[in-house]
Amino acid sequence: MVDRVASLEKLVHELSQLPGIGPKTAQRLAYFILRSSKEYAHDLQEAIHDVKTKVKECPQCYSYTEDELCHYCSDLHRQNDLICVVEDPSDISRLESSQVFRGRYHVLHGAISPLDGITPQDLKIQALINRIEESRSTPTPITEVILALDADLEGDTTVLYLAKILGQINIKVTRIAHGVPIGGDIDYIDHRTLGRALENRIEL
Amino acid sequence: MVDRVASLEKLVHELSQLPGIGPKTAQRLAYFILRSSKEYAHDLQEAIHDVKTKVKECPQCYSYTEDELCHYCSDLHRQNDLICVVEDPSDISRLESSQVFRGRYHVLHGAISPLDGITPQDLKIQALINRIEESRSTPTPITEVILALDADLEGDTTVLYLAKILGQINIKVTRIAHGVPIGGDIDYIDHRTLGRALENRIEL
Repeated sequence: MVDRVASLEKLVHELSQLPGIGPKTAQRLAYFILRSSKEYAHDLQEAIHDVKTKVKECPQCYSYTEDELCHYCSDLHRQNDLICVVEDPSDISRLESSQVFRGRYHVLHGAISPLDGITPQDLKIQALINRIEESRSTPTPITEVILALDADLEGDTTVLYLAKILGQINIKVTRIAHGVPIGGDIDYIDHRTLGRALENRIEL
Repeated sequence: MVDRVASLEKLVHELSQLPGIGPKTAQRLAYFILRSSKEYAHDLQEAIHDVKTKVKECPQCYSYTEDELCHYCSDLHRQNDLICVVEDPSDISRLESSQVFRGRYHVLHGAISPLDGITPQDLKIQALINRIEESRSTPTPITEVILALDADLEGDTTVLYLAKILGQINIKVTRIAHGVPIGGDIDYIDHRTLGRALENRIEL
């Protein structure tokens, strides 16, 4: 589908670069923006600009922030001895919504993936080790590292690597449980998840 | 889900105003934009800006254009005597993709909808009548008006209204056929479509 209007076609093209946005959706969005108020179009442009200029990585946990330290690192009411390792900054808000974890976070910015040429050196792993060791000269040293990585090949590879490397600086390493989702119907759970759920069975 | 980063949350908010984009999708898009290249973010902002500043309505058919006349009105190789009436500019590219119609277009910018307070005066209907009558003093007057409006209540209402009003200036008015879609399985077609398909049956 072509709109025969250069700037409309350009906007459709740019929007269709976004993940999960096909040409048809991009066209619908472009027409919406074209019909929208000057204010909305302006706010949208400004929001894109601000995100690219104001947001940077937190120097301590490598999640995103606009300030010196991120919201979680600067929060005085969180436990300093517990640190949860995630692949991406967006994982943090998911974990926070569970309202179970009250410790600190550390973002690796990816997972080990030989196929994509992503090695441990490309991830914030050394920074994690430094953070643990530096914490040992503080009143509340880090005592446990919880790995909350994706349950895929890259996540598993990274978990194995971190377990080995963190074992060397003797610190307790745990991994979040994988199993049948809450409300999940056994009939519809894949065999690998069921296998994991059986291995990780808990005595009642 | 909150990201605890003001400008990220603002972008998520703005993106979730777009049609069919929920908060979760908006968050995924916002993170993609945050991680994307400076160039992409710049091009996206520019595309939004250009669409709002450069695109205007064609003074003849009311579709969108950046030039004096739109692509279809300025095309010398199209029939002047055939005019196809659509609700929205985006409908034109759909019809063009069928490669069946080679006449001109006229965009109403909506359909009659008493519930939404949209009356004939809110649509480009008088402009259509003027266009037909003015064409009569040209070598190629408009001889047929094809109505390609949505097959919903508003579309049907508008078709009835246009048939009446255009009848008064005696011009041939036709409506695109509604029926079973090509490749459609009778089992899965709703009864109203089947009813229409039966009414509009064609002798072989």
